[in-house]
Amino acid sequence: MNVDYINPFLIATSNVFEKMLDLELVREKPFIRRDFVPQYEVTGIIGLTGKTTGTVAVSLPKEMALSVTERLLGHRPPELNAQAVDAVGELTNMIAGGAKAHLQQLQLSLGLPTVITGTATSIAFPSRATPISIPFRCPLGPLVVEVGILA
Amino acid sequence: MNVDYINPFLIATSNVFEKMLDLELVREKPFIRRDFVPQYEVTGIIGLTGKTTGTVAVSLPKEMALSVTERLLGHRPPELNAQAVDAVGELTNMIAGGAKAHLQQLQLSLGLPTVITGTATSIAFPSRATPISIPFRCPLGPLVVEVGILA
Repeated sequence: MNVDYINPFLIATSNVFEKMLDLELVREKPFIRRDFVPQYEVTGIIGLTGKTTGTVAVSLPKEMALSVTERLLGHRPPELNAQAVDAVGELTNMIAGGAKAHLQQLQLSLGLPTVITGTATSIAFPSRATPISIPFRCPLGPLVVEVGILA
Repeated sequence: MNVDYINPFLIATSNVFEKMLDLELVREKPFIRRDFVPQYEVTGIIGLTGKTTGTVAVSLPKEMALSVTERLLGHRPPELNAQAVDAVGELTNMIAGGAKAHLQQLQLSLGLPTVITGTATSIAFPSRATPISIPFRCPLGPLVVEVGILA
């Protein structure tokens, strides 16, 4: 995977957290992972198509997903309900959309976000699209953004 | 969701199983599900973009995923390894690709397949894209194809 594609996702994630959630993210060291096992209980996934294809996954702990929902909607859901799932889907969508704006040469379109909950899960990208994991942390907790783009 | 979009996925799933796996599928009654909880341990997910956006999920038991891999590759992996994950991703890709050919008016592009393994998982589509579940069975076991397309 072309590392030039990573920076737009770094910037987009920080921008979304700053502008939409009023949270400053601290980025940790990105790394390559063969098998994607989300460390956290809630993961939004969105597909990218255009001159290439790819997938973005945004994974965060359950409590942080509820806090993010609270910041986006103004009230905290009691559990991972449809509102929380939609909020994490929308967070994923905003991050992918922000990165897309910085990758105009790829003419990307975004798919619908899918949100996976549960800890006994592994999420694998195709072996030809090794994902890069980008860990972040903020006052609400940690998150990981994984990006797999062909070529 | 427009029910006219369902038939292409029914046909494509049966065609892929017949032509690629030499298996005849029996279709059971499709139904609408609010929360997608995959009944089975392995789920391939692929995003669709074009004049609309959508997601297709193909869920099957672990043993069936290994049998499908065996039929596609000629040998049975000992466990859910990268080959099995790629095979389920490719199965999902072929089903989505077959349906796309019957939905030319939507000018769909397919994203990269993502494969989720594990039983303690729920997979939610956005609340605005209620998925239709289409259960099938065949001599190797059962599977469910879920389709969520906006509008």
